[in-house]
Amino acid sequence: MDAEAFRRGPIRITAYDWVPRFAEGHVRDLRLRWALEEAGLPYEVDLVAQGAQRGPANLQRQPFGQVPAMTVGGQTLFETGACVWRIAETSDALLPADEAERDACLSWTFAALDTIEKPIAMMAMLRFFTKDKAAAAAVEPDVSALLAERLGRLAGTLGDAPFLVGERFTVADLMMTAVLRDAEEVDLQAFPSLIAYVARHEARPAFQAALDAQLVPFRENAARYRRPRSGAIDRLG
Amino acid sequence: MDAEAFRRGPIRITAYDWVPRFAEGHVRDLRLRWALEEAGLPYEVDLVAQGAQRGPANLQRQPFGQVPAMTVGGQTLFETGACVWRIAETSDALLPADEAERDACLSWTFAALDTIEKPIAMMAMLRFFTKDKAAAAAVEPDVSALLAERLGRLAGTLGDAPFLVGERFTVADLMMTAVLRDAEEVDLQAFPSLIAYVARHEARPAFQAALDAQLVPFRENAARYRRPRSGAIDRLG
Repeated sequence: MDAEAFRRGPIRITAYDWVPRFAEGHVRDLRLRWALEEAGLPYEVDLVAQGAQRGPANLQRQPFGQVPAMTVGGQTLFETGACVWRIAETSDALLPADEAERDACLSWTFAALDTIEKPIAMMAMLRFFTKDKAAAAAVEPDVSALLAERLGRLAGTLGDAPFLVGERFTVADLMMTAVLRDAEEVDLQAFPSLIAYVARHEARPAFQAALDAQLVPFRENAARYRRPRSGAIDRLG
Repeated sequence: MDAEAFRRGPIRITAYDWVPRFAEGHVRDLRLRWALEEAGLPYEVDLVAQGAQRGPANLQRQPFGQVPAMTVGGQTLFETGACVWRIAETSDALLPADEAERDACLSWTFAALDTIEKPIAMMAMLRFFTKDKAAAAAVEPDVSALLAERLGRLAGTLGDAPFLVGERFTVADLMMTAVLRDAEEVDLQAFPSLIAYVARHEARPAFQAALDAQLVPFRENAARYRRPRSGAIDRLG
């Protein structure tokens, strides 16, 4: 899909209708919303209900039963990295015209998702998605050291610069910021320049608009997903 | 960098001069070599000695002190995904002309590195790079379940098809094969169609040429990295 297809639209993305509190502001459709906001491209959202992500309708758009997917005109793309890169290619809002800078943006987009996000995802797995908490805690220092080494390299490369590529905000900063803000505070605290980097880009109006938009359906649908409280169970019993 | 830059060359990639046996055939420069072989692009190799990967010369090309990086003309790209994608864009050897198929190739390239490789990398971390082996073994089933779920979705999407996109080998198959062959056999054994998929693409002459080329310096430099045996230590003592 090219810039013309994006301009014709309609652009539709998928997102959840609700997630548990800890995932609010961290579901990956946020990255597409942010890129679309930066690029000035209006979009619509197809909400996927919890439990329906592995149903046939969503699997047809997204083979792993995840969100997001993106449909432009009649064509569907999946994977956050692929969608954000295609959005970036539509204009110079996220991707400079200079060829060397475009190459650097591609490198950093993959670096965010591959080199940086892999150890962040491992830490999340250990902290939130493993049953044996004591074992996970015993493994954590090894993964934490790997993450710290990579964050240290990133901080060293960035120095005091506000941007990864050239003198302006690009898709490289969008993806790196989105990935870093999914790390836990404790993992970033040794790197104040990275904390400042994330805060600076999170303050962008396009990010705030994207974040607000992700949260709206969560508020609207919260009641439907509320578990019965003990009082309710008592009344049932 | 565009197709013309690749044709002008020279194309140079970085690779290690030696790695321990378990990493042979699995260092990521293999993915660039394979893509370059498929695209019919001759390349040269700058070998990085063990211990020098975090030295200033390599950090200038690769901010995380890894291999590979790729220099075309005077321009340097890093991250395997970025390098392979730019190689793919140079011709129709790895990327079809059809726009929808190109989009699908981009989605699957990111799917390989992000959705599939994340749990594979977690398994490798637990098996090979953690100090507390008992704790790692206790965490393994949770990660293994995540990996199996994703491999199951991949196998379901692929079915009996030999290729992920259209009727021919593309960069999507190159990246997915490269990622899957870094999983351990035990993790793939429930998915015979994926084992067959990997074997089919590993049989390609371009893959074999890439693999052979990666191994040559390891053989040549093995003696330099051989640890003193107990006999040698005895003689020293």
